[in-house]
Amino acid sequence: MLTRVRSAVAHLVSSGGAPPPRPKSPDLPSATAAPPAAAPEAPKSPPARPGSGSRAPAKTAEARASFSRPTFLQLSPGGLRRADDHAGRAVQSPPDTGRRLPWSTGYAEVINAGKSRHNEDQACCEVVYVEGRRSISGAPRESSRGQGLCFYYWGLFDGHAGGGAAEMACRLLHRHVQEQLKDLVDILQDPSPPPLCLPSTPGTPGFSDRSHLVGPQPCWSLQKEVSHESLVIGAIENAFQLMDEQMARERRGHQVEGGCCALVVVYLLGKVYVANAGDSRAIIVRNGEIIPMSREFTPETERQRLQLLGFLKPELLGSEFTHLEFPRRIQPKELGQRMLYRDQNMTGWAYKKIELEDLRFPLVSGEGKKARVMATIGVTRGLGDHNLKVCSSTLPIKPFLSCFPEVQVYDLTQYEHCPDDVLVLGTDGLWDVTNDCEVAATVDRVLSAYEPNDPSRYTALAQALVLGARGTPRDRGWHLPNNKLGSGDDISVFVIPLGGPGSYS
Amino acid sequence: MLTRVRSAVAHLVSSGGAPPPRPKSPDLPSATAAPPAAAPEAPKSPPARPGSGSRAPAKTAEARASFSRPTFLQLSPGGLRRADDHAGRAVQSPPDTGRRLPWSTGYAEVINAGKSRHNEDQACCEVVYVEGRRSISGAPRESSRGQGLCFYYWGLFDGHAGGGAAEMACRLLHRHVQEQLKDLVDILQDPSPPPLCLPSTPGTPGFSDRSHLVGPQPCWSLQKEVSHESLVIGAIENAFQLMDEQMARERRGHQVEGGCCALVVVYLLGKVYVANAGDSRAIIVRNGEIIPMSREFTPETERQRLQLLGFLKPELLGSEFTHLEFPRRIQPKELGQRMLYRDQNMTGWAYKKIELEDLRFPLVSGEGKKARVMATIGVTRGLGDHNLKVCSSTLPIKPFLSCFPEVQVYDLTQYEHCPDDVLVLGTDGLWDVTNDCEVAATVDRVLSAYEPNDPSRYTALAQALVLGARGTPRDRGWHLPNNKLGSGDDISVFVIPLGGPGSYS
Repeated sequence: MLTRVRSAVAHLVSSGGAPPPRPKSPDLPSATAAPPAAAPEAPKSPPARPGSGSRAPAKTAEARASFSRPTFLQLSPGGLRRADDHAGRAVQSPPDTGRRLPWSTGYAEVINAGKSRHNEDQACCEVVYVEGRRSISGAPRESSRGQGLCFYYWGLFDGHAGGGAAEMACRLLHRHVQEQLKDLVDILQDPSPPPLCLPSTPGTPGFSDRSHLVGPQPCWSLQKEVSHESLVIGAIENAFQLMDEQMARERRGHQVEGGCCALVVVYLLGKVYVANAGDSRAIIVRNGEIIPMSREFTPETERQRLQLLGFLKPELLGSEFTHLEFPRRIQPKELGQRMLYRDQNMTGWAYKKIELEDLRFPLVSGEGKKARVMATIGVTRGLGDHNLKVCSSTLPIKPFLSCFPEVQVYDLTQYEHCPDDVLVLGTDGLWDVTNDCEVAATVDRVLSAYEPNDPSRYTALAQALVLGARGTPRDRGWHLPNNKLGSGDDISVFVIPLGGPGSYS
Repeated sequence: MLTRVRSAVAHLVSSGGAPPPRPKSPDLPSATAAPPAAAPEAPKSPPARPGSGSRAPAKTAEARASFSRPTFLQLSPGGLRRADDHAGRAVQSPPDTGRRLPWSTGYAEVINAGKSRHNEDQACCEVVYVEGRRSISGAPRESSRGQGLCFYYWGLFDGHAGGGAAEMACRLLHRHVQEQLKDLVDILQDPSPPPLCLPSTPGTPGFSDRSHLVGPQPCWSLQKEVSHESLVIGAIENAFQLMDEQMARERRGHQVEGGCCALVVVYLLGKVYVANAGDSRAIIVRNGEIIPMSREFTPETERQRLQLLGFLKPELLGSEFTHLEFPRRIQPKELGQRMLYRDQNMTGWAYKKIELEDLRFPLVSGEGKKARVMATIGVTRGLGDHNLKVCSSTLPIKPFLSCFPEVQVYDLTQYEHCPDDVLVLGTDGLWDVTNDCEVAATVDRVLSAYEPNDPSRYTALAQALVLGARGTPRDRGWHLPNNKLGSGDDISVFVIPLGGPGSYS
């Protein structure tokens, strides 16, 4: 996330690059600890499979307070320093000798060119087991199929204005997903439609007894059938919300600085769920064809939602902003003239007479990478940002940001995938300087240079994508072969094979 | 619009089919009269080209008060009675002998099977001249190109809960479009980008002087370029809003009963603008390919907008509704159990413990044609409905309805059209029983049976589409050849040739 939060990044940079002081309160809960309150049972659930990439702090407590990288990178203290070097910008990947990531997932990352002290992207790859909700007696509830559920999970978290939110989301978001799925273990494995109503307490006798389900009501003949798929989507959506609420609760004690975009993939029961809140992007490249799996959420794509909120809740704008959009800042001397504007209901533009209120700064301004909400932030969905204020003001920006992801579903069973079919996830550091077609061309070029059953091909592809976006150093900058500027942002890429040598059990 | 407004239609039917009494206040403004206040200069603008289809009342004042049909149908008093006959449901089209509609547009309509006393659809086809805004002296402003603009206009208005709103929109909406375009006459004909800022008063000296345009501001380097196309979109959007406001102002004096969906096409300077507010639909069939030109706005497609409004403004829900969606009505005895729900941020479903507030009726309920806002109305955009209340309540529904259309643009110059390429507009009476593919097949079948230069082929196509949706009477109902039920709703269809013998001057 490059220069998309003006004030906070400015603060970070102006403080000489040193990380902000951390309080001596207890550390953030570790990846295997429970999200408190919101997910009280998490400590009792089985830990993630060892070696699957759960995050851990860097070697010393001091180093951890400064920065951390995914444990699946298996970085030594020296490796950590090299990963943190803005001058060299060495591409980092899991070692070829170690245990592979699930599905032989490829991963590569590189630190930014100096816009923030540390790499504020984080990455997570986990295999998570979900046991059904426990009964009152504490014994695991007997599932109708006698077993829990397992999901595969990948997450990219692109932090801004500090690394705290991205680190916390990286450690805990999959635990929230796990928690949300606990009530659904039986339901998702039962081919009949999900019950609309359940008894009050999970784990009480008869909880899984279908005779409790209430049929169509005589007083309201309308009854919707809800799919299994939409329950998983709802679980992921609520996991994002609970993660965000946890950040709000713990932001003082643990200094969860900043916010982060979150791009998450959950593979469960044959389907791939891609959840995106922010401006990272996921695409599937299948037999050369590009299938977009996410949309970016920016002040431009969410203009009407933002304006509507400002219109309905003008108190959120203070006396500094107007919910109307203007194509440029209005000068006081232009009062009474007529300016182009867009209201929250409009996609077109029209002229209006400039009144005193129109001299306020527009809630949404700029375009492309320079588009901003309240002149401050360039992304409109994500986690955290609870302390984010308008520059030189006490006006909070969080009310305009949404923590809810958009979830797209891809049924892996509907197509016979070959080893060259991949799901590519990248933070905006990748997509700022490339596009879907170029990425698809790189997929073809790199994968065809390796044997189909060589599991290292996906890491090689991730490295090629990161290198292609970073470029090479020249004339005090990073440049691409076409002489354009390379990305100076943190860049992180997952390459998930859909028909490769991975395990889909 | 069949049975999509429960309470109001019930009132109409229970009153024995007689139209509600009309006050003796002055008639609604005629098609050539100005929309008062909102468009004060309309009387001075040139009338629509004669014979182009401007609406007029039926022959006598009494008949007019009862119902009216488009004047371009040239119905005699006997013809009006036949058009109003629910038993015969004769298909109506402009006579083949009369002056053709612009572009040789085809049109056909049929009355409903008894759901309302009269046909509540209305149709309009006009050629409208736009003169630049007059100067203070009253003389027409000198245009930089020395001439005004001409636009072609087609509108379908599907009324509900009375015919008043549809009739008024049919007579006046194009006048509002004309009014909104007056300031743009010069700007749209000038190939340079539209000025962002204009002097205060249209018509003052220097109004069209480009030297008044302010360049990029040093204090805000961001400046958006606004396209000519988006100015036309903005003009159409504001015309819809002003039409709706006029209905609100005049609803008491003139008894503008009910509301209407509005589907409008404006052809201007080489581009076709399709504006839709409601559940009518427009598609282009081009060389057999289907190009959707509108989206339907229903409680299902607009669920999240509606829920967000209810969430942010709970006072709009009274004590009767909840903004949460449930898949069926909850019984009081289910308090404390856990029910599936969707909040405004969710696309998936999750379980929640049922609390007392959840026993309220959901703001959005049902699915498909039975989806409703506040258990009352099945369409969420349109004009009018200012008096619409929840059944047996004083709670207004209008705050949840939007009068703003979605505008899609089709550049007619980007493709060489043949006489078989058409834009088809239909009210939901057509689309309830057919789909895009079947309509495209009918386009192919009917047009291929006529010579390409036979202008009557488009009316024949419109008739075939209406007949195909109505079906034939059998067993006290209307049936299609596949034994499914035909549409019992009012059905209206325009077929606009894109490369036919029409005039595009």
